[in-house]
Amino acid sequence: MRMAELARESGCTVATIKYYLRVGLLPAGEETAATQADYHPSHVARLRLIRVLREVGDVPISRIGEVLAAIDDRNRPLHQILGAAHYALGPQPGDASPALGAARQEMVAFVLGRGWEVEPVAPAFDLLASAVVALRRLGAKCSTVVFAPYADAAFHLAELELASIDPSRGPSDTVTQVIVGTVVYEQVLVALRRLAEEHYSNQRFGDRGAVGQGQGPAER
Amino acid sequence: MRMAELARESGCTVATIKYYLRVGLLPAGEETAATQADYHPSHVARLRLIRVLREVGDVPISRIGEVLAAIDDRNRPLHQILGAAHYALGPQPGDASPALGAARQEMVAFVLGRGWEVEPVAPAFDLLASAVVALRRLGAKCSTVVFAPYADAAFHLAELELASIDPSRGPSDTVTQVIVGTVVYEQVLVALRRLAEEHYSNQRFGDRGAVGQGQGPAER
Repeated sequence: MRMAELARESGCTVATIKYYLRVGLLPAGEETAATQADYHPSHVARLRLIRVLREVGDVPISRIGEVLAAIDDRNRPLHQILGAAHYALGPQPGDASPALGAARQEMVAFVLGRGWEVEPVAPAFDLLASAVVALRRLGAKCSTVVFAPYADAAFHLAELELASIDPSRGPSDTVTQVIVGTVVYEQVLVALRRLAEEHYSNQRFGDRGAVGQGQGPAER
Repeated sequence: MRMAELARESGCTVATIKYYLRVGLLPAGEETAATQADYHPSHVARLRLIRVLREVGDVPISRIGEVLAAIDDRNRPLHQILGAAHYALGPQPGDASPALGAARQEMVAFVLGRGWEVEPVAPAFDLLASAVVALRRLGAKCSTVVFAPYADAAFHLAELELASIDPSRGPSDTVTQVIVGTVVYEQVLVALRRLAEEHYSNQRFGDRGAVGQGQGPAER
């Protein structure tokens, strides 16, 4: 197919595709004339993957190349490919502070102490440590006892998620499943938690007459 | 106390405090001379609350006034005060699309169908609906069956969270607890879920020899 069709099929603009060709994220098409090239369905698939990495995964352009290289490396086990994609997902860690470093070490000890097989370099530890620093700064409750139910819930959900991954369509498609699962279901979980908090706030502090609008069930 | 001390105690700059006085978020101090006013510990507490709303809760300045008015309204039940704060938390919903409206209706039916006592206007439904639209656009699995374990996990965590709220120190402090709990523990949950995903990816797809660095436990 020509460039115009590639743009239509992939949902990328021609300018974006030319940029990806220039920086090497997309392999060149087959040259058919001095100014024309032929593109294949594999180009469409690669562009869709780049879009998922950027738009869903918030992966910086500078790291997309690493993820694609991992996918293209036939000697790399799937867990390492998924790890390359997972570690590149946003939000990117901010600057390190001494308080953050100490909190990070505590969190690594907490998580490895639960028997989770994860790398201490995982960027999710930065996210976790910055939450710990924020809780302490605000004088809020923050201990591994309080964290345990969150770890249990996360562990249970991750087990279901990984069991639902179908690796049969190759590493590129599997990476897409993992990114979508990680990022979009994160939003699902966050939204449902806020709704559940509203429910329990209503149960504990609500004045039914003033608040309810009759959508909920009757008293339990 | 003088303005300089108020700034020091609250962690806000003098310019910021003057801005909050001007727009009415902070009540004026007691005038002691033409250009001097005396501030009280209640001013410090109010400034700290505004900081938590802005910096932790990502609440737009334009909505902070509503939350403060709810707190100051002695006739308002605590659930409504917490709701005013909760509904103002970021991220703010984006533009509505027809696909989003339809997904939102489905999600309201799903959540109310579970017996949760929440308002259909809750902004978390916008967050949930935008995740549904993204999943469908990407051709990913998306059904209330797939959502159920997330709803169960969220429900269980919210029950623990609301039980841990101590309302005895008044609505202002309770709002702070709820905002910190909602926003910062959201980050804790998200980070732990990513780590748990890495663990199960390792279990399912890992090549121990190549990936493990010996921190994990031995084979189960």
